[in-house]
Amino acid sequence: MEQETRRRGRPPKAPRDQSSKHMLIRVGLKHLTERGYASVGIDEILKDAGVPKGSFYHYFPSKSDFGLELIRAYDAYFRDKLETHFGNMTLSPTERLRSFIQDAEAGMAKHSFRRGCLIGNLGQEMGGLPENYRAEIIRVFQTWQDITAALFAELKVDDPEALAAFFWTGWEGAVLRAKLEHSAKPLNSFAEIFFQLLQQRGTAR
Amino acid sequence: MEQETRRRGRPPKAPRDQSSKHMLIRVGLKHLTERGYASVGIDEILKDAGVPKGSFYHYFPSKSDFGLELIRAYDAYFRDKLETHFGNMTLSPTERLRSFIQDAEAGMAKHSFRRGCLIGNLGQEMGGLPENYRAEIIRVFQTWQDITAALFAELKVDDPEALAAFFWTGWEGAVLRAKLEHSAKPLNSFAEIFFQLLQQRGTAR
Repeated sequence: MEQETRRRGRPPKAPRDQSSKHMLIRVGLKHLTERGYASVGIDEILKDAGVPKGSFYHYFPSKSDFGLELIRAYDAYFRDKLETHFGNMTLSPTERLRSFIQDAEAGMAKHSFRRGCLIGNLGQEMGGLPENYRAEIIRVFQTWQDITAALFAELKVDDPEALAAFFWTGWEGAVLRAKLEHSAKPLNSFAEIFFQLLQQRGTAR
Repeated sequence: MEQETRRRGRPPKAPRDQSSKHMLIRVGLKHLTERGYASVGIDEILKDAGVPKGSFYHYFPSKSDFGLELIRAYDAYFRDKLETHFGNMTLSPTERLRSFIQDAEAGMAKHSFRRGCLIGNLGQEMGGLPENYRAEIIRVFQTWQDITAALFAELKVDDPEALAAFFWTGWEGAVLRAKLEHSAKPLNSFAEIFFQLLQQRGTAR
């Protein structure tokens, strides 16, 4: 019903401007972070976005190209989030990680823990995805890990890259469980033990 | 070609015996651990298993029921694996965990790291799955965690349940990355830091 009302407010033929493209990406991210790639059809994205099929194919030659753009948009959004939290020099490095984790939890709570991480979803689904997604997904994880390793280096841990890989491996597992259980508990349980580990390994705070 | 040869060896109408059911479950596990639920069709499972559609619907009213049976079969198989490794009293508790991890790695290597964990795959896909899968997937994770918590209790760690949840959260993330990267490295990197954590927290070995 809500969708119906929203769509009625729009002109029947959306102009081919950047706002249609932006809307398709926003709606695509919503559906794919909830349900992954394979179970989401282009038609339901068009319907939800209130954008005609022609506009979609104007911007994206195929669902596969659309998915790639979603990966890039999600990566840019998330990198920005990480850099904002990790670059907040008014906080200690540990507090900066905590502030990212709290933000991520609030983001999941806002959508009742129905949306997970696009990169985690696609990583898990990779066996059924276009093969060119693989390198892209690996690259995104690596980028997030590099940003995190720089933070851990400030804590003077032994091997910041290895610990950043460990964090992202576990964090993606925690997001999966939070979405599965519709609860913040898996995020908090993971974070609690990870902070203890960080405290043991870091010589700074 | 290989499939073709295998199918030619079977009678055109497979009898409705337990071996057809067993074959469907075996082939289903292969496809779903590779590609998840949504992107796998019943038809390709029938083709690969060399079992006619009628036999499938004799055993499973729907794809959704088939998926539930796969979850149960995978859980039984995996519980047995955990109990075998963790119950091997000739090894120390830490060595028993290592023996499970090595077995899991060998299992992934055997299929060139193309197959992941069915429960992790389905957990990630849950937003697009039949809703009755949710409780089942949560239950399976809890069972594996309980078996693991009993092992950690032998190491006299502070909160074995929390540490077992942490292990499974991270391990599922590691399996996801190993499948994504077609490599054992994510499993080993995760295990290495986890063993250090275990050593710090446990007063026994």
